[in-house]
Amino acid sequence: MKSPNIAIVGATGLVGKTMLQVLKERNFSYSSLRLFASPKSAGKVINFMDKDYEVEQLVENSFDGIDIALFSAGSAASLKYAPMAAKSGCVVIDNSSAWRRDKSVPLVVPEVNPEDIFEHNGIIANPNCNVIPLVVVANPIHKLYNIKRIVVSSYQSISGAGQKGIDKLTKEINNIPTGDKHRIFSNIMFHPAEPNDDYTNEEVKLHFEPKKIMHAAEMKITSTCVRLPFFACHCEAVNIETEKPFELQNIRELIENSEGIVVIDDLKNDEYPTPDIVRNKDEVYVGRIRRDNTISNGISLWIVSDNIRKGAATNAIQIAEKLLQKVNI
Amino acid sequence: MKSPNIAIVGATGLVGKTMLQVLKERNFSYSSLRLFASPKSAGKVINFMDKDYEVEQLVENSFDGIDIALFSAGSAASLKYAPMAAKSGCVVIDNSSAWRRDKSVPLVVPEVNPEDIFEHNGIIANPNCNVIPLVVVANPIHKLYNIKRIVVSSYQSISGAGQKGIDKLTKEINNIPTGDKHRIFSNIMFHPAEPNDDYTNEEVKLHFEPKKIMHAAEMKITSTCVRLPFFACHCEAVNIETEKPFELQNIRELIENSEGIVVIDDLKNDEYPTPDIVRNKDEVYVGRIRRDNTISNGISLWIVSDNIRKGAATNAIQIAEKLLQKVNI
Repeated sequence: MKSPNIAIVGATGLVGKTMLQVLKERNFSYSSLRLFASPKSAGKVINFMDKDYEVEQLVENSFDGIDIALFSAGSAASLKYAPMAAKSGCVVIDNSSAWRRDKSVPLVVPEVNPEDIFEHNGIIANPNCNVIPLVVVANPIHKLYNIKRIVVSSYQSISGAGQKGIDKLTKEINNIPTGDKHRIFSNIMFHPAEPNDDYTNEEVKLHFEPKKIMHAAEMKITSTCVRLPFFACHCEAVNIETEKPFELQNIRELIENSEGIVVIDDLKNDEYPTPDIVRNKDEVYVGRIRRDNTISNGISLWIVSDNIRKGAATNAIQIAEKLLQKVNI
Repeated sequence: MKSPNIAIVGATGLVGKTMLQVLKERNFSYSSLRLFASPKSAGKVINFMDKDYEVEQLVENSFDGIDIALFSAGSAASLKYAPMAAKSGCVVIDNSSAWRRDKSVPLVVPEVNPEDIFEHNGIIANPNCNVIPLVVVANPIHKLYNIKRIVVSSYQSISGAGQKGIDKLTKEINNIPTGDKHRIFSNIMFHPAEPNDDYTNEEVKLHFEPKKIMHAAEMKITSTCVRLPFFACHCEAVNIETEKPFELQNIRELIENSEGIVVIDDLKNDEYPTPDIVRNKDEVYVGRIRRDNTISNGISLWIVSDNIRKGAATNAIQIAEKLLQKVNI
């Protein structure tokens, strides 16, 4: 099996740069690498593993000869170029929200539904950065105890808004005015409203995507998603109601033994996952595992993951790895 | 009716200083004012409304002649000195958690249970800073629709740890090491564990106190409480399940017309309560009022209040005001 020709679309963005870093860390084997970005970044030179790459602008035949393209350039670029790439025989792994609800596009977290990867028609969607850690933890619980309802409150870093978000917080820390309606330093922000909805676009993603990934149409999810003044990681306070009764110790062992999860849970010694601990990690971290006695079968827990890594870049590359394990390019 | 002789115990702390500020803003009428603090602050001079006050150390007969003492000096001081004060005929309004669970001590939020003020035996407890805004909003809903269960996730400023907390965040912003296990800048922290419990001491307060204040023993509350890198205000993502069905518009009007609440709720125009907006305000702010369709009668909302003001100093002084409206000193 030969190594694939790969491309990163959105290579100059926060997720694109992290994709390069993750490819390197995982010794991802490829025959060739091409980097694409918006016209204003085209022509820039990126040095990666001692080799210079000129950033290219996307055109109709950009994907000729490319086997796998990792897209992270926003929904508009994905809507326009992913079908062109697919048509030319390339498999797109798309980090935008453009294709996630499309019934012909699998939405994949490798720990949860790796088999869906092979149902693709040229496009595989990478889920929202809050959704990925939630389903990594919820899926093993759902399989054994049948989750009826999840209430999530998110604590999301401003890196979810990309380099622009990081720059905003940095400016505000240094008292440089940004002209924005809400500051994020020492403050909170919500995501934009979903049209014709009382929920934000982020909350609507969190309500829909886990059901598709977990094949759990009956599972109910409600949430409040909040942006906060930290630079890295998304945290989630999660309250789960299962249909079947459980022993809390069994839930703890189930989570500890599930793929892609690290448990830090010793509140008495102030040990729990924080953004400082989880930053730059590829696993989903879980702590504060406790019984919620206000319902018959209730679990509360605290999930932290690096939204740019497992929430975006790492998950996309793990999808590519699974794809390559079974498919000869 | 003559104006009372009043005292502040813990006058040099963050809440104590804010009590002075609130007394001034509300033109609280008193005959005399005395300021107490720990031995290490005794002898300091505080200028308040163009008059110098020497901070005194507490001794057994400190409360002779004092009518109302506002305590905010921690549980140990309250346990020791509040009974002495009560014995000398003074009414203590205590901001610590020392007396909140005592059946002979009323726990009061003036918008919710003002009548309980007059059941005191010399001590009235001021509730936890997360509890006060929650019950101000939950009580009118409970009266009409009977709340069965509340799930709360808190977003709490580091000012909840007092001046020490503010100093910690300030140092960390300026890259000055604090030697603490967890930083709060660009990070999160949990409160200390409640002994023999999987929940923190803050969460346990939030589960118990609303039931006592609202006289709602059957109401169930579960929570995750988190400290975050902002200087002021506590926010709460609140999910409420009622027994009786409702129209969302009626819930909105009920909240808007309830005492002590300001509603800011226009997500489409990015209008919602934030710490920046609510800082230094005495009202409880509510936004993101929306139906939760994952249960039959579900409401989600977002509450923000200034934890040092309505969550502590202002509520204590409002209790004193109510007390003085009915009682001749």
